[in-house]
Amino acid sequence: MNSKLRIIGGVAAGMSAAAKARRVNPELDIKVFTDDQYISYSACGLPYYIGDVIKSSKQLIARTVEHFAGQGTPVLTRTRAIDIKADSKLIMLEDLTTNRYFEEEYDRLIIASGARPVFPPLEGIHLKGIFTLRNIQDSDAIKNFLREYQPSKAVIVGAGYIGLEMIENLLVHGCQVSVIEKAPHILPSMDSDIADVVSNYLNSRGIEVRTGEPVTAFKGTDTVKEVMVGRNSLPADMVIISIGVIPNSEIAARADIELGSSNAIRVNEKMETSQPDVYAAGDCTVVRHIVSGQEMYIPMGTTANKQGRIAGENAAGGNAAFTGVLGTGISKILDMEVSRTGLCEQECQNLGIEYISHTIKSRTRVPYYPDAGRIHVKLIVDKNSRRLLGGQIAGYPGSGKRIDTIASALTMNSRIDDLINMDLAYSPPFSPLWDPVLTAINKF
Amino acid sequence: MNSKLRIIGGVAAGMSAAAKARRVNPELDIKVFTDDQYISYSACGLPYYIGDVIKSSKQLIARTVEHFAGQGTPVLTRTRAIDIKADSKLIMLEDLTTNRYFEEEYDRLIIASGARPVFPPLEGIHLKGIFTLRNIQDSDAIKNFLREYQPSKAVIVGAGYIGLEMIENLLVHGCQVSVIEKAPHILPSMDSDIADVVSNYLNSRGIEVRTGEPVTAFKGTDTVKEVMVGRNSLPADMVIISIGVIPNSEIAARADIELGSSNAIRVNEKMETSQPDVYAAGDCTVVRHIVSGQEMYIPMGTTANKQGRIAGENAAGGNAAFTGVLGTGISKILDMEVSRTGLCEQECQNLGIEYISHTIKSRTRVPYYPDAGRIHVKLIVDKNSRRLLGGQIAGYPGSGKRIDTIASALTMNSRIDDLINMDLAYSPPFSPLWDPVLTAINKF
Repeated sequence: MNSKLRIIGGVAAGMSAAAKARRVNPELDIKVFTDDQYISYSACGLPYYIGDVIKSSKQLIARTVEHFAGQGTPVLTRTRAIDIKADSKLIMLEDLTTNRYFEEEYDRLIIASGARPVFPPLEGIHLKGIFTLRNIQDSDAIKNFLREYQPSKAVIVGAGYIGLEMIENLLVHGCQVSVIEKAPHILPSMDSDIADVVSNYLNSRGIEVRTGEPVTAFKGTDTVKEVMVGRNSLPADMVIISIGVIPNSEIAARADIELGSSNAIRVNEKMETSQPDVYAAGDCTVVRHIVSGQEMYIPMGTTANKQGRIAGENAAGGNAAFTGVLGTGISKILDMEVSRTGLCEQECQNLGIEYISHTIKSRTRVPYYPDAGRIHVKLIVDKNSRRLLGGQIAGYPGSGKRIDTIASALTMNSRIDDLINMDLAYSPPFSPLWDPVLTAINKF
Repeated sequence: MNSKLRIIGGVAAGMSAAAKARRVNPELDIKVFTDDQYISYSACGLPYYIGDVIKSSKQLIARTVEHFAGQGTPVLTRTRAIDIKADSKLIMLEDLTTNRYFEEEYDRLIIASGARPVFPPLEGIHLKGIFTLRNIQDSDAIKNFLREYQPSKAVIVGAGYIGLEMIENLLVHGCQVSVIEKAPHILPSMDSDIADVVSNYLNSRGIEVRTGEPVTAFKGTDTVKEVMVGRNSLPADMVIISIGVIPNSEIAARADIELGSSNAIRVNEKMETSQPDVYAAGDCTVVRHIVSGQEMYIPMGTTANKQGRIAGENAAGGNAAFTGVLGTGISKILDMEVSRTGLCEQECQNLGIEYISHTIKSRTRVPYYPDAGRIHVKLIVDKNSRRLLGGQIAGYPGSGKRIDTIASALTMNSRIDDLINMDLAYSPPFSPLWDPVLTAINKF
């Protein structure tokens, strides 16, 4: 009889795992369970779906249930995994349509249960017009609300990537947009000097940005009308809460699977959990940070895909390893691009690393070429070993993806001195003669 | 008395050397000689000056004679260096305005005499309307001709970067443009599969591209009227010849300074020539290719600047080293971007390296995001060591600068297996979930 691979979760990690396991072993008995009705969708595309940049939610779906069925991989949607009995290798499930409970045997199991948005237990949190954004249903609810209520004032709570990406996608609906961030500056995963570039830009575009104070309550009768920030009140016809996610790891914890950083499922580089034959991948797991060597929780679509592939390969009999992440991220905020990789100053301080940092200002193109926008590049270097630790970029179009040059150097564990003569591409429409990244490198 | 640093050449390498030497030693007696009337101009910007993308030639000039004078560094323009007497540490010079000859002593000398365009001794080459493009005077002559003669048919001879960059800058003047390349494909420094992407694009834009045949003659009475390609004739009211450059190394050769590849001046990593106290930098010198370790002639503005800095630093008493180049290049050809770094297939073959190569097709952004253009990424890997050897990219806007991710990996001497999980930046407006470079890496 064929070995049974069961997968819990049908988005990035789960479906990458299913696809890879199928490629590795065409005969494997694979089945996927997800409580969602949609599978394999691009969560990172949701803001653009709300902003009508993407017209149909179908475009967000990479591969359908039918596609997987055609590969001999049934995907059971609206089917929630309730418990795992690791000793007897069983999963307890609920069919959300019929409310029928059933169980499934597995030989190997991949948990790719993802994460869910933090939804703070504040006064008024259940008022109409307050949303989080995680899946297609959330997006459809937001789109319906925008259409029906035509809110004139929208407040975004939380100024991470998704929160800031929502700005342009609410502006197109005619909303006036404000952003509230409880951390001292927006983009809390980046340093304040780079975040301030974005903050100043947002102010210049008429976006109110409030930092350093948490939201304390929401007011309104049926629909939200005010967001309370300490003693102050901001008028709001609509609120998007985007203050991070927490891993869906409870099912693993109940099965005595070890958790790690931020209560995410602890996995090794093969994506194995502490339970034999149980793998985990994606936003429900920890990752190893390549620069610090530390276990961290940094949920990202790219990582979920890579981990899913590796879990799928190994669960199907392969021997792949995931080396870890750099915490690379990028975001388009109206005409501003912001990106990061490696460690930021705060992380270095937390790790007790002595570092040097320099931030340079340059242009995306030769200054005499049209649309040569301002770009800021920050690099952080270990003071003693002179090893490159991280980089951050903020600037106008053409800025953000330059972070990959730094990510590539971090992947190879570069010392800053290895990079001073780097032969980066130059032509007036693409770069100043000294690429901004190279200018930053030469500051050390 | 102060040590005398004399510099021959006033463009990228020469003026970088002068600026750096001044920073290293504010007291140094520095003097620069150039036969040109302009200094410190961006040669790579010339096509865009012709295309009126850049309105004034002044914008192309990074630093003026007055700027250097203000730093205590006189720059003598229209002053040609005729000979170097290395034994007596003298330079023989001619003032091109007064035709007066004079000599100058030096303690240390930097030769940054640049390169000049190849001007083939063909029948009809001196007809009016036939141009090369190397400096501001050339550009002004082309602009004047365009204004006065309003040519309707322009032929570009040579399909390297500059030749192809001229296409859009002639189209704006209402010319119908054809390109002739004697090599089997355009962009001869790249592989045919990547070059064909550009070639097909040019055809789709109505640009006639002829490859594999050299120009044999130009016909016309006063002004050029035809370009002869074997037995065929192409009508032409104007011709741009852009078939490469040769180093201005004769002055060095006469001073018994050793030449290397392509008769360029041989320098070590300190930019020292074979003559004591004589340095050289920029388009008149050889470079070491980091991947092959070979001495090559690859004149580039970026390299000239880096070498100039290093020559300036060392001539002023410092101890800097130039590690070499990757042959990185990039070009915008209408809406197509093309770039390269490291070795191409032909170079691997010439070096007797056994290699594997893969070319992938992807998109510049997530396919559902607007303007997700086609991108082709080619990587070449050593078959035995699995070391990354080179990369080439062709595609729509957002493609070209991705080459820097590969250049960074090459700088660090990466094996392809080091890179398979690289944490590159992803968000729908910037990249598919798997960045095209990462997709290519994962083909090996």
